[in-house]
Amino acid sequence: MGDPGGIGPETIVGAWACAPVHECCRPVVIGHPEIIRRAVKLLGSPARVQEVASPDEAGASVDLIPCVPCGSDEALAAPLGAVDRRGGQAAYEAVIEAARLALAGHVDGMVTAPLNKAALWAAGHEYPGHTELLAELCGVNDFAMMLYLSPPEGWHALSMDAKGVEHHQHMRPGLGVVHVTLHMALRDVFGNLSTEAIVAKCRLADTVMRRLLGRPPRIGVCALNPHAGEQGLFGDEETTIIAPAIEQARQAALDVTGPLPADTLMVKARDGAFDAVVAMYHDQGHIALKLLGMHRAVNVTLGLPIVRTSPAHGTAYDIAWQGRAESGGMIEAIRVAAALSRVSHKSEIRSTKL
Amino acid sequence: MGDPGGIGPETIVGAWACAPVHECCRPVVIGHPEIIRRAVKLLGSPARVQEVASPDEAGASVDLIPCVPCGSDEALAAPLGAVDRRGGQAAYEAVIEAARLALAGHVDGMVTAPLNKAALWAAGHEYPGHTELLAELCGVNDFAMMLYLSPPEGWHALSMDAKGVEHHQHMRPGLGVVHVTLHMALRDVFGNLSTEAIVAKCRLADTVMRRLLGRPPRIGVCALNPHAGEQGLFGDEETTIIAPAIEQARQAALDVTGPLPADTLMVKARDGAFDAVVAMYHDQGHIALKLLGMHRAVNVTLGLPIVRTSPAHGTAYDIAWQGRAESGGMIEAIRVAAALSRVSHKSEIRSTKL
Repeated sequence: MGDPGGIGPETIVGAWACAPVHECCRPVVIGHPEIIRRAVKLLGSPARVQEVASPDEAGASVDLIPCVPCGSDEALAAPLGAVDRRGGQAAYEAVIEAARLALAGHVDGMVTAPLNKAALWAAGHEYPGHTELLAELCGVNDFAMMLYLSPPEGWHALSMDAKGVEHHQHMRPGLGVVHVTLHMALRDVFGNLSTEAIVAKCRLADTVMRRLLGRPPRIGVCALNPHAGEQGLFGDEETTIIAPAIEQARQAALDVTGPLPADTLMVKARDGAFDAVVAMYHDQGHIALKLLGMHRAVNVTLGLPIVRTSPAHGTAYDIAWQGRAESGGMIEAIRVAAALSRVSHKSEIRSTKL
Repeated sequence: MGDPGGIGPETIVGAWACAPVHECCRPVVIGHPEIIRRAVKLLGSPARVQEVASPDEAGASVDLIPCVPCGSDEALAAPLGAVDRRGGQAAYEAVIEAARLALAGHVDGMVTAPLNKAALWAAGHEYPGHTELLAELCGVNDFAMMLYLSPPEGWHALSMDAKGVEHHQHMRPGLGVVHVTLHMALRDVFGNLSTEAIVAKCRLADTVMRRLLGRPPRIGVCALNPHAGEQGLFGDEETTIIAPAIEQARQAALDVTGPLPADTLMVKARDGAFDAVVAMYHDQGHIALKLLGMHRAVNVTLGLPIVRTSPAHGTAYDIAWQGRAESGGMIEAIRVAAALSRVSHKSEIRSTKL
C-alpha cells in the first residue's frame, strides 16, 4: 500500500477499476483496510473492501478489493499529504508483510506503492528506499533497478487488441533502461564506470527483457562522450571501457550494439530499434525516460528471489488525496509484475548474474 | 546552397514549393544554377531557375527560383552523395558570397544548406564548420550557436492560423537550447564550466529569444548533477557555479530559473513552461532535442553582425539525390531567418554581449 499519506492508496483503487488488471492476475492489497476504504470513498468507487486472512482467500474483482490487514491503527491519525513517521511505519510494515508472503510463495509477485524516504527514516528505518530494504529482507547483495517503459498504447491497446487467452501471451515490446551509475555526482561517474559493470548491466537487461518479450532483446549501449567520442577526439572511454564490455557481452551471446552516441541511440530506441538501453549515468537515461513518458514507467528490481515492481513516481504529497493522481503507473506496474510472475521461475531469477 | 553532393540542393527546391516561404521573405539561391536545375528535375518541380546578377533583381515565387551564380563548373563533375573537394569548394564559395551580400546589406539574412567538414577540408579550408568560417569573415571572436526547435505544429499551423499580415507578427513560441560546453569529452566539461560562461549563455538566449518572441523569454538552466545535486549529496557545482550565474542573470533583469534537474526541466520546457534552456554539456541538450524533433531544429548563430540560420541536419550523403530528403528543416531555417531579419536591428545584434 505504500505511504498512506501519499498517492499510493488512490492509485491502487484507481487500478482496481481497470478490468484488464483482473484478467492478468488476482490482486490483493497488503495494508490497513481503513485507508483503502478512504481512498474508495475519495474516488467514489463502487468497490467494497474485504478483509482477508490470507491471499488465498482473495477473490478480487473490479467490485471487490481484498485486503490482508497490516499495520497499526496509528496510521489512521497520520496527516494526509505530508511526511509523518506513522505513514513511514505503515509503508514499512506493508513491504515486510508483502515480501514475507512472496518469499513463502503465498503470492507470485509484489507491487509496491510509493513510500517517502523521509517518512521511512522518521519511523527509524534508514533505507534509501524499497529496493535496499527488499534486498536486505531477501538476503541478496547483488541487485539493480531497471526502468521499463511500456509502449505508448500500453495496457489499453493490449486489452482492446487481444481477447481472452491473448492476455496471457508475451507482452508487446516496451523499452527497458538500465543505468551503470545512478545517484552520484557527474564528476564521480568516471571512477565508477568499468567494463565489468557495463557487462553486468547488459546481462541484467537481457535477462529481464528476454522474460518480458519472449525473445532475446536487442540492447543498445550508450557512449559516455558526445558523438561517441568522435574517434577519440572527445574522450576515450568508448574505446577503453565500453567497447570491451560490448565485446564480452557479445561473446556471451547477447545482442548488444554500441557504444552509440546517446542522443541518436535514444531516438532509435524510441523508434523500436532496441528493446533495452544501457545508460552510463543518471541524466543520460532519465532525460529520455521523462520525455518518453515517465508516468508510464515501471521500476523493476532485479536480483531478488521474488518478483517486485513499482510505479516510477513517488508519494506526490502535493496532490495526494485530492482525487487527481493518475493510476496509469500502478496499472503498468501490476501488468509487468504479472507478466514476470507468469513466465519466470524463481530459480531463474535467483541465478541472475549481476 | 551548401555542398552540391549533399541534400542541400533538394531541400532548397523542396522549400521553394512551400508557399508560406514566399510570404515571409524574398529568397534567392547563392550557388551554381545547374546544380539547382538538377534538383528541380530530381523532384519533378515545375519551378524555373533564373540566373540573376544581384538579389535585388530576384522575383522569387513557387514557380521561380532566382539564383546568383557562384562557384566554378568543376562542381558539376563532383560525385553525388560523397565527400569531394569540389563539393567542399562550391559550398565554401557560396558561404563567402552570401556573407558578402549580407554584410553589404544586399540581403537581410542568410540561410546555409549543409556542408561536409571533410569535403571543406579537402578543398583546403580547415574550419570546423560554417559558424567558425562566418565568424572569421565577420571579424568576430565572441559567437555561439543556439538550436531552436519550432513548435510541433510549426510553419503549417502558422500559415493556416494566421492570414496576411499575421505572417509578419511575432512567431509562435518555440524552444531555444544553448549549450555552455559542447564538443568536448564529458570529463573536460568540469574545467570548462564557469559562472561567467553560464551568464553569457543566458544573455545570449535572452537576446535571440526576445527577438523571436517579442517578449522577455523564460529561461531554464539545467543542473549538472542528477537531482540538481540533491542538496549537495551528488556534487556541488549547482551551488558553487550555477546558482551564482542565475543570481547574476537575474540582477541583469533576465527571467532565469534554476538550476533545475535536467530531466524534469526538459519535460517542463517541452510542455511550455520555458522558452529557452541553457544546457551544461552536449548530450544533456541533444538527447532532449533529438527526441523532441531534431529534424525541425534550426541552428541560429549569435554574435555575428548578420542574421544566419541553417537546418540542424548535415549533408546526409547516404540519402542525397534520391528525392527522399525532407525540406522541413530548411523551411524552418528560412522562417527563423526571416523572423530575425524583420525584427532585428543590426546594431542590436552587433552589441550582443557574449
